[in-house]
Amino acid sequence: MLKLNFAKKLLAVAACASLLASPLMAAEKVYRLKLAETWPTNFPIFGDAPKNMAALADKMSNGRLKITIDSKNKHKAPFGVFDMVRAGQYDMGHSASYYWKGKIPNTLYFTTMPFGMTAPEQYGWFYYGGGQELMDEVYGKFGVMSFPGGNTGNQMGGWFQKEINSVEDLQGLKMRIPGFAGEVLAKLGAKPTNIPAGELYTALERRTIDALEWVGPSLDLRMGFHKIAPFYYTGWHEPATELQFMINKKSYDKLPADLQQILKTAMRTAAYDMYIQSYHESGVNWDRMKKEFPNIQVKSFPADVIAAMRKANDELLAEKAAADPLAKKILDSQSEYMKKARVWTEISDKAYLDNMSE
Amino acid sequence: MLKLNFAKKLLAVAACASLLASPLMAAEKVYRLKLAETWPTNFPIFGDAPKNMAALADKMSNGRLKITIDSKNKHKAPFGVFDMVRAGQYDMGHSASYYWKGKIPNTLYFTTMPFGMTAPEQYGWFYYGGGQELMDEVYGKFGVMSFPGGNTGNQMGGWFQKEINSVEDLQGLKMRIPGFAGEVLAKLGAKPTNIPAGELYTALERRTIDALEWVGPSLDLRMGFHKIAPFYYTGWHEPATELQFMINKKSYDKLPADLQQILKTAMRTAAYDMYIQSYHESGVNWDRMKKEFPNIQVKSFPADVIAAMRKANDELLAEKAAADPLAKKILDSQSEYMKKARVWTEISDKAYLDNMSE
Repeated sequence: MLKLNFAKKLLAVAACASLLASPLMAAEKVYRLKLAETWPTNFPIFGDAPKNMAALADKMSNGRLKITIDSKNKHKAPFGVFDMVRAGQYDMGHSASYYWKGKIPNTLYFTTMPFGMTAPEQYGWFYYGGGQELMDEVYGKFGVMSFPGGNTGNQMGGWFQKEINSVEDLQGLKMRIPGFAGEVLAKLGAKPTNIPAGELYTALERRTIDALEWVGPSLDLRMGFHKIAPFYYTGWHEPATELQFMINKKSYDKLPADLQQILKTAMRTAAYDMYIQSYHESGVNWDRMKKEFPNIQVKSFPADVIAAMRKANDELLAEKAAADPLAKKILDSQSEYMKKARVWTEISDKAYLDNMSE
Repeated sequence: MLKLNFAKKLLAVAACASLLASPLMAAEKVYRLKLAETWPTNFPIFGDAPKNMAALADKMSNGRLKITIDSKNKHKAPFGVFDMVRAGQYDMGHSASYYWKGKIPNTLYFTTMPFGMTAPEQYGWFYYGGGQELMDEVYGKFGVMSFPGGNTGNQMGGWFQKEINSVEDLQGLKMRIPGFAGEVLAKLGAKPTNIPAGELYTALERRTIDALEWVGPSLDLRMGFHKIAPFYYTGWHEPATELQFMINKKSYDKLPADLQQILKTAMRTAAYDMYIQSYHESGVNWDRMKKEFPNIQVKSFPADVIAAMRKANDELLAEKAAADPLAKKILDSQSEYMKKARVWTEISDKAYLDNMSE
């Protein structure tokens, strides 16, 4: 209806700019973030967490927050994710905090610990017991923000070719078990090794290794270990492996407040969802494994083996606490929290499960 | 800088309206929803879930989605929440699905069931095992959407004045235990009663009742039952009580797609967070209770009492399944799901906790 000549149109457009409050203009702008994940393309469960997070952020922001994901097939640096986020080469990362322990020792404590907290206990510590604040303290000085990124639930102790009946059976045991849990076993005489995922099946089949741990039925099924090893041991070393979302602080600070909240909520929901998805897939896949291979024997390590592992674990942690005040602060916080939470777990979920097994 | 006279300004404003795409105008509009909760004002944990949900929705939407909460002190109808949401008197509700079983029997199955699933198992069922779809089927015909609204975790079996050593000890036992669990106990000779929250302490102290169940340490501490009853029994009847968010379908449909997603994600996150908050508060409060009253005795019902309760429970559920095909469909879905999930729970979290107790 309006008949404006060109000059008037220009005036009108200019007037729009002044009439419109800046929030509206900001509402138009599309923010694009790049995320590097440690996992290969389309890796199940682990890879679903950042995808779900990005989809939620996109929908909740009406397309104003776009997150693209590069898998390790693209960036070729699965264990360089922290460095790339720190340097701003990527805005975000999806990985696991304990991968950075060689570089920053105190990142070890934000994934899972042998004989540590279960998933609900550990989420309690992160969100209500000071865990997030301690993670902020560790990561803050690198200009990186870190958040829980999805939990695998309790990981199985692994696939073994031979039964473990005593601590002696650990002597010289060649086992693929990376990280801190490997250090614990090494203290007891085992020979932990690391082997690329693609070579694990053959290594276990040909007895190049005697045992290995991967995750649990949720991800072990596709690896096929149940076809070649008779003993599946229950867990001790990764009771609640929490993956990690990282964001470069500068990338985060550039976002308007509503998109910051959308991003944080999308990460938090995707993390919780991954825990539940892992639980679900574990139940479904274990059912399949057992049906196809009814001879799989589920075993728990004997009490004296567990006791020896705990002792070795406690000694290693005491060394770490003695060497670094921040490590001590984190470990004290975890063990204090766990004491209260575990007593509750024992009279609630554990007592309930015991009541039902009777 | 621009010097427009009044007429030109009017033209400019009119031009803005045509220059701006409608999404921007929509982005300006503030949507207001009213939520009725079953709980009193500032009720801890339960009441935090809708508050947290509303705060998340507000921040993520940059103030475009405003949710106000009326507690039962305001609306005076704690057990009328479903009706008020259904009628559109409120857009949303926060309550518990099993409160509506008198009106719509199949709502019973979406909170928790005696001898049913634990919290991660039940979330698996809701989100990955078809539970949400069954809840949609039950609520859809009333124009109401229902979603998980926060989990209390495993509830304790309750506070008892006397020990329960056999099924005979249940005969004539006056216990405050509402709902379906009360029906189970009644089948075994107990006399379940319901008593308003404010009168419970006195009733238990004066032995008007012999026992009561409330929630667990997270909410029992403030009730003070530990001061007047010596036995605290572990749980069987509410292994994972999930509260409920409800939305009137018409109110939901009026929201633009981004606000719908914001609302759903805010509810989902607030629900998960309540589970973790409950876990946390349980650990902390149980620690306080024990320190103040070290003589509290935690007991589990003897195996034959548990067996009798399970039998009574199974019989009641079989009656419900026989009477209603949708009830049968839901119960079958739950028991099928639970079979797989529980085997996983037993070789993962339970085995781990057993390993650590040794």
